[in-house]
Amino acid sequence: MRMFRSDYSEGAAPEILRALVSTNDEQVAGYTEEGDEHCDHARALIRAACGRDDVDVEFAIGGTSANVVGVTGLLDDWEGVICTKDAHINVHETGAVGACGRTVLPTDDANGFLTPEAAERVWQFQTSTGRHMTRPAAVYISDTTELGGVWDLARFDALCDWADARGLKVFLDGARLASALTSSAAEGLTLEHIAERCAAFYLGGTKNGMLFGEALVIADPKLKRAFPYLIKERAGLLAKGRLLGVQFEAAFEQPADGNEALWWRLARNANACALRLRDGLVSLGFEPYGESASNQQFFVVSPEVTRSLEAACGCETFYTLSDGRLVVRFVSSWATRAADVDELLTLAATLA
Amino acid sequence: MRMFRSDYSEGAAPEILRALVSTNDEQVAGYTEEGDEHCDHARALIRAACGRDDVDVEFAIGGTSANVVGVTGLLDDWEGVICTKDAHINVHETGAVGACGRTVLPTDDANGFLTPEAAERVWQFQTSTGRHMTRPAAVYISDTTELGGVWDLARFDALCDWADARGLKVFLDGARLASALTSSAAEGLTLEHIAERCAAFYLGGTKNGMLFGEALVIADPKLKRAFPYLIKERAGLLAKGRLLGVQFEAAFEQPADGNEALWWRLARNANACALRLRDGLVSLGFEPYGESASNQQFFVVSPEVTRSLEAACGCETFYTLSDGRLVVRFVSSWATRAADVDELLTLAATLA
Amino acid sequence: MRMFRSDYSEGAAPEILRALVSTNDEQVAGYTEEGDEHCDHARALIRAACGRDDVDVEFAIGGTSANVVGVTGLLDDWEGVICTKDAHINVHETGAVGACGRTVLPTDDANGFLTPEAAERVWQFQTSTGRHMTRPAAVYISDTTELGGVWDLARFDALCDWADARGLKVFLDGARLASALTSSAAEGLTLEHIAERCAAFYLGGTKNGMLFGEALVIADPKLKRAFPYLIKERAGLLAKGRLLGVQFEAAFEQPADGNEALWWRLARNANACALRLRDGLVSLGFEPYGESASNQQFFVVSPEVTRSLEAACGCETFYTLSDGRLVVRFVSSWATRAADVDELLTLAATLA
Amino acid sequence: MRMFRSDYSEGAAPEILRALVSTNDEQVAGYTEEGDEHCDHARALIRAACGRDDVDVEFAIGGTSANVVGVTGLLDDWEGVICTKDAHINVHETGAVGACGRTVLPTDDANGFLTPEAAERVWQFQTSTGRHMTRPAAVYISDTTELGGVWDLARFDALCDWADARGLKVFLDGARLASALTSSAAEGLTLEHIAERCAAFYLGGTKNGMLFGEALVIADPKLKRAFPYLIKERAGLLAKGRLLGVQFEAAFEQPADGNEALWWRLARNANACALRLRDGLVSLGFEPYGESASNQQFFVVSPEVTRSLEAACGCETFYTLSDGRLVVRFVSSWATRAADVDELLTLAATLA
Repeated sequence: MRMFRSDYSEGAAPEILRALVSTNDEQVAGYTEEGDEHCDHARALIRAACGRDDVDVEFAIGGTSANVVGVTGLLDDWEGVICTKDAHINVHETGAVGACGRTVLPTDDANGFLTPEAAERVWQFQTSTGRHMTRPAAVYISDTTELGGVWDLARFDALCDWADARGLKVFLDGARLASALTSSAAEGLTLEHIAERCAAFYLGGTKNGMLFGEALVIADPKLKRAFPYLIKERAGLLAKGRLLGVQFEAAFEQPADGNEALWWRLARNANACALRLRDGLVSLGFEPYGESASNQQFFVVSPEVTRSLEAACGCETFYTLSDGRLVVRFVSSWATRAADVDELLTLAATLA
Repeated sequence: MRMFRSDYSEGAAPEILRALVSTNDEQVAGYTEEGDEHCDHARALIRAACGRDDVDVEFAIGGTSANVVGVTGLLDDWEGVICTKDAHINVHETGAVGACGRTVLPTDDANGFLTPEAAERVWQFQTSTGRHMTRPAAVYISDTTELGGVWDLARFDALCDWADARGLKVFLDGARLASALTSSAAEGLTLEHIAERCAAFYLGGTKNGMLFGEALVIADPKLKRAFPYLIKERAGLLAKGRLLGVQFEAAFEQPADGNEALWWRLARNANACALRLRDGLVSLGFEPYGESASNQQFFVVSPEVTRSLEAACGCETFYTLSDGRLVVRFVSSWATRAADVDELLTLAATLA
Repeated sequence: MRMFRSDYSEGAAPEILRALVSTNDEQVAGYTEEGDEHCDHARALIRAACGRDDVDVEFAIGGTSANVVGVTGLLDDWEGVICTKDAHINVHETGAVGACGRTVLPTDDANGFLTPEAAERVWQFQTSTGRHMTRPAAVYISDTTELGGVWDLARFDALCDWADARGLKVFLDGARLASALTSSAAEGLTLEHIAERCAAFYLGGTKNGMLFGEALVIADPKLKRAFPYLIKERAGLLAKGRLLGVQFEAAFEQPADGNEALWWRLARNANACALRLRDGLVSLGFEPYGESASNQQFFVVSPEVTRSLEAACGCETFYTLSDGRLVVRFVSSWATRAADVDELLTLAATLA
Repeated sequence: MRMFRSDYSEGAAPEILRALVSTNDEQVAGYTEEGDEHCDHARALIRAACGRDDVDVEFAIGGTSANVVGVTGLLDDWEGVICTKDAHINVHETGAVGACGRTVLPTDDANGFLTPEAAERVWQFQTSTGRHMTRPAAVYISDTTELGGVWDLARFDALCDWADARGLKVFLDGARLASALTSSAAEGLTLEHIAERCAAFYLGGTKNGMLFGEALVIADPKLKRAFPYLIKERAGLLAKGRLLGVQFEAAFEQPADGNEALWWRLARNANACALRLRDGLVSLGFEPYGESASNQQFFVVSPEVTRSLEAACGCETFYTLSDGRLVVRFVSSWATRAADVDELLTLAATLA
């Protein structure tokens, strides 16, 4: 059975792989730099998708590298970034942002969404004794959230409005942005709108059908100036930078047949499979945990059922609830097929 | 004409690419971790090639990441690493080692080889006023050197003996180690011997036919303990770690036909092409700069000839000599063919 | 009226100042190093007070410097320190520990004391996904706590036992350790016992009658080796290191009259004044906040009364409660006299 | 005999000590912050001495702290500072600037003065391959230099002009600035002029009669904004900040008798004693090393004579020349008297 463990279990989508193979023999300038036409083309495609000519588009090999360079490049040494306590930069990156000397300032938000109210409490506290405390200068959010949550337009604008009022820059971790923007729960939030309001954000490739790679969109002048150096200093600059260019070209090129670009289509497949799984499990009587409309689905199950499911499909346990039941995560990807979901549902029916 | 600009201009060697394509649909555990059989297999192959069972083998996406994690993981905050002034970590990595808080301590060695004499001067100076100076705790060398130099057994052992006597750990940057070890100039220096004497070193893939990737061999207990965390904290851990496993598997697997493993064969081709080019240029009257027996060749040429050569084959200018002539570098790779060399020599004949 | 704003409002206790004046013309070796007999003497006195010959005693100019060097010197880059969320290193030092690349891992303890239960939750979480999270390697506590709390023997041993079981080092911030150990609430906890169980801790001077200075007691081998270098690298090494030696000599020298050494006596005065103030305010009907038996006293008062008290005695507001009342802090010191307390109580009587 | 080992062997000048004693009982706001009238007064006096109202004046406890916060606060993470290879930040501070993630870029200047020619070579090299190298953004000089050299107006302006042309900020380490500016060799270089051209610099107290302390003068907007936070984050903020205010007040207050302020007078004494010593030793046939007109004097002597001098007056050995002779340093201070010099000369006469 296909595993539902993560969206980075397979290699790359066939179209991506074909692009890598077909360009393999070309000799291309290194480091995503001048003369690399694939990177330049990918940059142009992404700028167009964002509807902004004035942003810089740069590449990182993965999410942690994009977060480290993006977040710390927005900040001075003594400044910090506000995020939820479950934010990837706060718990899942072995202190990588902190290791660059910037401070992560978690709120008490509990469901993955950073709220203006909780952020304001952190702001009030951190500015209460002047220079004795790290000064907040940015906020970090991710779309989707750690729990698969999808930001909608109203929620996103409320946070951006609050951040603007405080003079804070907004950074958006888009490791799963394709899944978020193609979800029905996005309700009006578009790539163009994100590009308009964020100091910087990225379009994730690793979890959306590429071998690896994230594309950073940078509007902030400080980060624009710093990025080319920081990505090298933080050991994230790829010698064969063309690999990033070729993959993002393939992902954002407009197909001749009038279809959407690949980046969007891959995410739509992941989402459709996730919702098929969700609906199926709910029909079988399984209890969902939270309301995800994206490619990660969380369910509350007993330890015994968890063991069976984990053995069958690789789903991971996220939390243990106070009653002893577990929260498990199922992840679909560009590679998941409806038949894979149905096979899992057939098994689940025997456990329900 | 094929460019001779660098050994990372193309994608991957066909065998490597085929391995990536043929494993693309497999679902594999992430992050090079438990359950990733490709990484585990690659580790076993590399341990065998090194003749040591007791070393850890880990992966990095590129040379700077391998250097940053490898070198800083050997040191405490207040310790430093001795290297030549032209060492990659001293000049070409935007201060990446320093950005992790360790100090790079360059000698006055001029030709890329770190000598015990120059290293001893740095040692004497740095230990002359106790804790007011960074204390040396490791040495960094690269094989081949920045100028294509190849360490032989005697030179290598002399440095290691000196380092041992001072209690310093030896780190070897092996971005081009395959070219070095397959060069006639290695004179007895083997992979097994390096593995025996170094605290840590790496086998370069990026510049030897892989899309990207370096394999670190770690004997030092402090770095063994630190590496798994540091590679994540320094943003160098790949989600699809299998890509590294698959490539190094393909590079070190023993072919059924009794030939050498791919990693060695690719380097032999690069070296053979480089020597063919060197001999050809010397025959045409060009003046070599230094004595490289590896895949980088340096020549002294006039500015006019440099312009013609650069336009034709992408060779890069390294230095300007005091008489106005330039030192240019030609790099061959796994992808270079004898015919490419001959085409360049034909052109060069018109410029001699 | 004498202010009750802080215990660092005045200069130094007369005995300390006299020692500085009387030694002023001596020529002494710099940097607390070999040949500085005052530092050596102070080291011997402190070792004796701790009942351990095998510890290193070193000096820092203030609490943040002592915390930064002490805590980070116990840890490797990828390791973290568990502490309460209100810990000084977590909120009041502008991210100084984090700026050295180590991660502060706050618990949800609410009253200033780090509990094994809350620390265990952090441990469990941080070790749940291996190297993707900062690994805890030490705990940080302060005695007294941020809220004036005094560790007793049972509580201290319970935490140390838990830390030992997890292989975590214990660091104790002793900026106000004199006040803690001379408090009745210490209930059996002694300097000797702290010296026996902590990897490192310090005896505060800045807040106990010195111009500045903290004395670190180091049992941990890693920190012993690192401290001399780290204190210089972190810019905390005083050229005229003798100033630290002279002050700690004066503080720990056994008086000829058989009295306690000054360091203890100064704290007893501060505590006595604090309790006199506490008892007086309680008698007047003021509501204490928490149970401090040390030189910081917290009371819940209305905003109007706060304004009057603040204008009169400089007490500071710490929190705003949900009902709008404020938690204010009164701090006594070596310089406070009973008459000062009574003057404040007379005023308070008009506000009660 | 009085030692000539350093200018930080004694405590403080009597006037400084008296100021500390006479203000000891005052209760003053902490951390050099609002409400500390001594710090505010000292700031006003220093601004007046600099002839600029628009600079910030801040305090550090010593030279390394001033250098770390001052230099790194001028730079972004990926930027570096050009200085001579013997610069204090390059060799004598255990990598403190590097530990904050900025890179020190030494020239090959040999005599302590940073020249535009050598600095230009570093600039050319560091900007030759774009973001693969640390980008220079500031220059660091010290007045006096490590060898007692005194910058004159022409030399200073030539460097500042070069730096301006390259867009580099100028930072001046003034640990011994008083000695420099009161030296005849300053030839027109004034405090006002330094304040006009430097992004930041400091007026040293530790080596000019204070217990400790340096006063930073900051014109650079980035550093103005950062300093209050950085000095805390880098663990250099003194709780009893008043100590710095009181000392600098005493040093820069205009005496009623029309004399110069103390800061200048103490340095004049140190210089006068140094020149008396220099002239005396030269008369006795000793060979000076370099041309210092400040409070450090260097002489070339045999190992035997060095031993006798070192035992008598604590002079330190700086270099060993190729002929086996040694370069020794004699340092005078505010505390040195003519009689001390003559006593040393009498001894030296027996060794000449």
